Amino acid sequence: MEFSEHIKTANVEDVVLRRPFHPPMKGTLCVTGHHLLFSNRDGDSSRLVLLLLRNIDAIEKRPSGSSGTITLKCKDLCVLQLDIPGMEECLNIARSIESLSSLDSVSDMYPFFYRPLKLSLQDQWGLSSPEQDYAQMEELQDRWRLSHVNRDYSVCPSYPPAVIVPHSVDDKTLVKVAKFRHGGRFPVLCYYHRKNGMVIMRSSQPLTGANRKRCREDELLLQAVIDGSGLGYIIDTRSNQQAQQARMTGGGFESKSSYSCWKRLHRQLERGKVLQESLIKLVEACGDDSHSVDRWLSKLENSKWLSHVHTALATAGLLAECVERDGHSVLVHGSEGTDTTLLVSSLAQLILDPNTRTLAGFLGLLEREWLQAGHPFQQRCAHSAYSHARLRLEAPVFVLLLDCVWQLARQFPLAMGFSEPLLLRLAMEVYASDYGTFLCNSDQERCAAGVKERTHCLFQSLLRPSERERYSNPLYEPTELAIWPSVQPQSLQLWRGLFLRWTQHAVHLEEAQVELRNLVIECRGAS
Amino acid sequence: MEFSEHIKTANVEDVVLRRPFHPPMKGTLCVTGHHLLFSNRDGDSSRLVLLLLRNIDAIEKRPSGSSGTITLKCKDLCVLQLDIPGMEECLNIARSIESLSSLDSVSDMYPFFYRPLKLSLQDQWGLSSPEQDYAQMEELQDRWRLSHVNRDYSVCPSYPPAVIVPHSVDDKTLVKVAKFRHGGRFPVLCYYHRKNGMVIMRSSQPLTGANRKRCREDELLLQAVIDGSGLGYIIDTRSNQQAQQARMTGGGFESKSSYSCWKRLHRQLERGKVLQESLIKLVEACGDDSHSVDRWLSKLENSKWLSHVHTALATAGLLAECVERDGHSVLVHGSEGTDTTLLVSSLAQLILDPNTRTLAGFLGLLEREWLQAGHPFQQRCAHSAYSHARLRLEAPVFVLLLDCVWQLARQFPLAMGFSEPLLLRLAMEVYASDYGTFLCNSDQERCAAGVKERTHCLFQSLLRPSERERYSNPLYEPTELAIWPSVQPQSLQLWRGLFLRWTQHAVHLEEAQVELRNLVIECRGAS
Repeated sequence: MEFSEHIKTANVEDVVLRRPFHPPMKGTLCVTGHHLLFSNRDGDSSRLVLLLLRNIDAIEKRPSGSSGTITLKCKDLCVLQLDIPGMEECLNIARSIESLSSLDSVSDMYPFFYRPLKLSLQDQWGLSSPEQDYAQMEELQDRWRLSHVNRDYSVCPSYPPAVIVPHSVDDKTLVKVAKFRHGGRFPVLCYYHRKNGMVIMRSSQPLTGANRKRCREDELLLQAVIDGSGLGYIIDTRSNQQAQQARMTGGGFESKSSYSCWKRLHRQLERGKVLQESLIKLVEACGDDSHSVDRWLSKLENSKWLSHVHTALATAGLLAECVERDGHSVLVHGSEGTDTTLLVSSLAQLILDPNTRTLAGFLGLLEREWLQAGHPFQQRCAHSAYSHARLRLEAPVFVLLLDCVWQLARQFPLAMGFSEPLLLRLAMEVYASDYGTFLCNSDQERCAAGVKERTHCLFQSLLRPSERERYSNPLYEPTELAIWPSVQPQSLQLWRGLFLRWTQHAVHLEEAQVELRNLVIECRGAS
Repeated sequence: MEFSEHIKTANVEDVVLRRPFHPPMKGTLCVTGHHLLFSNRDGDSSRLVLLLLRNIDAIEKRPSGSSGTITLKCKDLCVLQLDIPGMEECLNIARSIESLSSLDSVSDMYPFFYRPLKLSLQDQWGLSSPEQDYAQMEELQDRWRLSHVNRDYSVCPSYPPAVIVPHSVDDKTLVKVAKFRHGGRFPVLCYYHRKNGMVIMRSSQPLTGANRKRCREDELLLQAVIDGSGLGYIIDTRSNQQAQQARMTGGGFESKSSYSCWKRLHRQLERGKVLQESLIKLVEACGDDSHSVDRWLSKLENSKWLSHVHTALATAGLLAECVERDGHSVLVHGSEGTDTTLLVSSLAQLILDPNTRTLAGFLGLLEREWLQAGHPFQQRCAHSAYSHARLRLEAPVFVLLLDCVWQLARQFPLAMGFSEPLLLRLAMEVYASDYGTFLCNSDQERCAAGVKERTHCLFQSLLRPSERERYSNPLYEPTELAIWPSVQPQSLQLWRGLFLRWTQHAVHLEEAQVELRNLVIECRGAS
């Protein structure tokens, strides 16, 4: 495809750009295949604004006399406005933005064209692999093995080529179990708790269906997890009723009779459309400029966003308690095992495992539990809170994770090696990025598209010294202890840094952050 | 009076003390005239708990078998529990606490008995005086004079002996004006804006009454403020309707016909019972331990506390705008002129005047605008949010001020020379204190009780080097600019540091504060 087909008018002069925190600016607007480029006449490079078209969530055009105004609502929640002289130019520009910002083909996306001098395509892609992760955890190797049964993605299309399973379960068994689990997502290990040898497993729902089908191999695999004795917990991220209803469409749950050593707990976490609509309502409430405190608090309540944060953190806390305090292994799943399952399992790891709380450790956790584990980023993040497009598979599960991590970091200001700007950067990158990291829906798709050969890796880039300095927490003091979040509703706060970042007062808070960082750097330099 | 009359049982052994953040502790409880003293047997001084009886807002006793449990709900919002063996002892202790914590006589209060080695009663009391303040402001002296008409408190019992008024208005006129204003609070200068010579005046309502009485002297005084020309603003902290109704009870407002050069603006700020009940509801909501986010947000909304914060900040912003942006002088009053009037005038000064944003400057502002200006602290702070006593004159106006200042400091993290711990300390001291600063209802009462000779001054103590270090803002960078608060409802936050300070997660936040402070001190030491 030629991008130029979509560009009727490439350049318009005397456009006025209005954006938060800046006075209006007059200059030349230029549409390229992937960017809106705005520069003011004297060519001063500090007055150049570059906007990734992919970042645009909704576009509104409004004629005013012979000229027109375009409002751009971005996925990073920023709202910009362009005043364009000439109605035809305005309509052309709007049409170009509309089609170029919603291209579906992965290989047309900007990460395949982004070629900065400082990076090379030969650089390592990704931080680790299942093989390396397994090799590093010697203490689990006598009971757990690395299986390559999924090497060609045929057993489970959304899993990576290698996964960790009980030693006593062979690949043939895994193939049978995969057929009994939604999307082939058979139970795999995602966390080994060194202190007591307990594990966190994750999977999708079993396909028991209306007639309560059983699968001997599935039962054996779970038996092997708890070593034939003891008790395990299954945390089902659906309500009991939802799990029952899933049987009507071929899904289901682990019945007490077939899995006698496993105790099932239900915690309903919202997903999909409900979550997306919650985000939309929240962003709408944040943009409300009525001056009533009551109205604001009632809209905030109505959006339910903080309730979702609450349930996610509370469920992760429950999971962590099962492992650390009660000394049981846990299997977590909902229906597909690609959304709330990953949310809960990764939050529980942050609570339990100090290694996931460093900058590199946290990015590694995201790589393992979200990218390799097959969270469908492309589907979930196609649109954000402003789009008028009909919702399909969008859901801000990953943004919800980042919000929960922010709550954890706020409650334990010393325990995390990374800081709020990292979470904000990730919340932006997941929707529109120069890097290939969040492209596609699974490892398989990324391999097919050549993402690892033809794009740059965000996580590697975030770990370069200059970036590392920017995203690390100056107050970090590692602790080996679990960090138990308070899930009292009073302890939860709106993540203003994300949801109100484009409002006026955010500027002063940012200034204080910079000030604090400079102070720490100065301090380190001096000591 | 002998305190011992109130003490039936002075000592009880084997009492268990339960309080936030500490494991239960067994030891000896001792009741003295002003304190509860709790020490554990081995006499280790680090295990001594001292509680000012004045800090106790409500006491609940519950028998359990042969022993009893006393719950102490403190004015600093902390809740403690004592398990006391022996029902009779329990009842005796409870009775002693009840009577000793609610003594009314000022001279019986602890500040008259507090004699630490580090302080001397010969130390200066207070930070400044009207005379000193006037002497420092040379630029206003050609148009404004210091009047001693109130030297014996006979003209206005709640004013200090000296006040600043227009040069052209003599003392005889002031006496007449005082008779026309509620409680004698004639208009006085409280702030001179150097940039344009405009001023903020404050007073109480005029006593126009049902038959629209006029006072020529009052009109002349206000004429003199705007120098006979131009336009002034009157910000009335009641709604138009409330101001109209006030005429029925002898109060009133400045009518357009009699005060043609003054434009009246009405902004309704709640006071008295409404404000007190708002605080009670808020504290109740904060203590709610249901796990529903919706319920919490709805209770928070219901308490209306953040609405009061909003109105106070918005009104102060309006006042500051009149002075700085529009270049007009402003008179502010409600009915009595001792509550919301002071709230608005002091917040406006913080917005406009960089000198009030240093540690000493802020304490100076409190001294001028609250202590000398006659806020009735003893009446307003007799009880806090837990008391079951029938409300009389209680109202947390000063706490509301501190909350608004906290919001300002949060929005402008670099602009204030003092930090949150100072505001928390003040919120505690105003209800129960070792110092005499917040005793009594006016300067006159404090003089009569000998407060300045027989007690120590809190503000002087807070400015000693060791305390100064603790209460200053490590990120402070003075700015000469006005700091305009955002009054978008979204920009306001619950002051968790105060209202949720005794909940678990507050501990970690405090740790981070300490860490940050150490870092800064280390940094300064090294550079």
